[in-house]
Amino acid sequence: MSAYSPRLSRLIEALRRLPGVGPKSAQRMAFHLLDRDRQGAQLLGETLVEALGGIGRCPSCRMFCDEGENCRYCSSSRTAAGQLCVVESPADLMAIEGGTSYRGRYFVLMGRLSPLDGIGPEELGLDRLQAQLAAGEVQEMIIATNPTVEGEATAYYLAEMARGQGVRVTRIAHGVPMGGELEYVDGGTLAHALSGRTPV
Amino acid sequence: MSAYSPRLSRLIEALRRLPGVGPKSAQRMAFHLLDRDRQGAQLLGETLVEALGGIGRCPSCRMFCDEGENCRYCSSSRTAAGQLCVVESPADLMAIEGGTSYRGRYFVLMGRLSPLDGIGPEELGLDRLQAQLAAGEVQEMIIATNPTVEGEATAYYLAEMARGQGVRVTRIAHGVPMGGELEYVDGGTLAHALSGRTPV
Repeated sequence: MSAYSPRLSRLIEALRRLPGVGPKSAQRMAFHLLDRDRQGAQLLGETLVEALGGIGRCPSCRMFCDEGENCRYCSSSRTAAGQLCVVESPADLMAIEGGTSYRGRYFVLMGRLSPLDGIGPEELGLDRLQAQLAAGEVQEMIIATNPTVEGEATAYYLAEMARGQGVRVTRIAHGVPMGGELEYVDGGTLAHALSGRTPV
Repeated sequence: MSAYSPRLSRLIEALRRLPGVGPKSAQRMAFHLLDRDRQGAQLLGETLVEALGGIGRCPSCRMFCDEGENCRYCSSSRTAAGQLCVVESPADLMAIEGGTSYRGRYFVLMGRLSPLDGIGPEELGLDRLQAQLAAGEVQEMIIATNPTVEGEATAYYLAEMARGQGVRVTRIAHGVPMGGELEYVDGGTLAHALSGRTPV
């Protein structure tokens, strides 16, 4: 890409660090910012640098949290402090918070157990989770890891851990999605839906 | 979006200034940068601020160009200085430069004539283009605006202008794209291809 001037070339390379942005999109973004939204580019540049210094992790739930502020998901004003929902990523937390009426606490694993990639219980901060369970405040642990092979393995590990602490463990339901049609749902999902049937 | 912490919320808002990035993508980008690529975020932030101060416009061809450097598309080392290709955007220039062997000069309109949006000849810098044509260096002006209604109107206006200066004017060919199949090409394109047929 030597056809660009050096600074433009650096800008396009830097934009490619964003997830899902290839050379064409990066070029389009660079041209858009330079041509039509220099104010937005300035704002983005400054905000990025500010965010790096100012956003850390909540020591308790591991969600992103502004430095020097209390984590809003661990605040004592949450209605259901006895419930703890374990999710894989901050995006999963946002999905549950935005789409459901759940207002308990969270624990963000920031990944899933994956021994082949060198991700074990320590990398997911499970020692801290165990300490929280041992403290006795949590009455119910809701496991909301993804229904993938690794997510299921993580769920199994988490359930064993919670049972060892005498905490009630639940898993979010897996089955036919709302608005879905049985005819088009894959066999695995359907098998889950059938075995997980509930009395009406 | 009050579910985010203030700094995180600002970061996601700032990322939405990028073209084609909605709330979900912005959240994914923010989480990715914070969780997995803080170095990339730092680089992007600094590069954006640097780019704003350091990238301007070439006074001659209007392409983006590093301040204090000569525009590489107007350099005297270009082989075909007698040809001038008029394009709508920097991306169009890059497409021609990257996909063809054309090595003449360019003029970037940064838009197209669109009276309803208040974009007339002055906004596109056509006075500067006219001065270049009047200077007598240009032997051929190649019009490479898009084959849209506005692009065609712009092409017509440009052709009239160049003819007034006694400069030879050409338009890039429009027809069936390479690898395309006649059966699936739209009627307008096919009509263009037929009327623009060339002797073999």
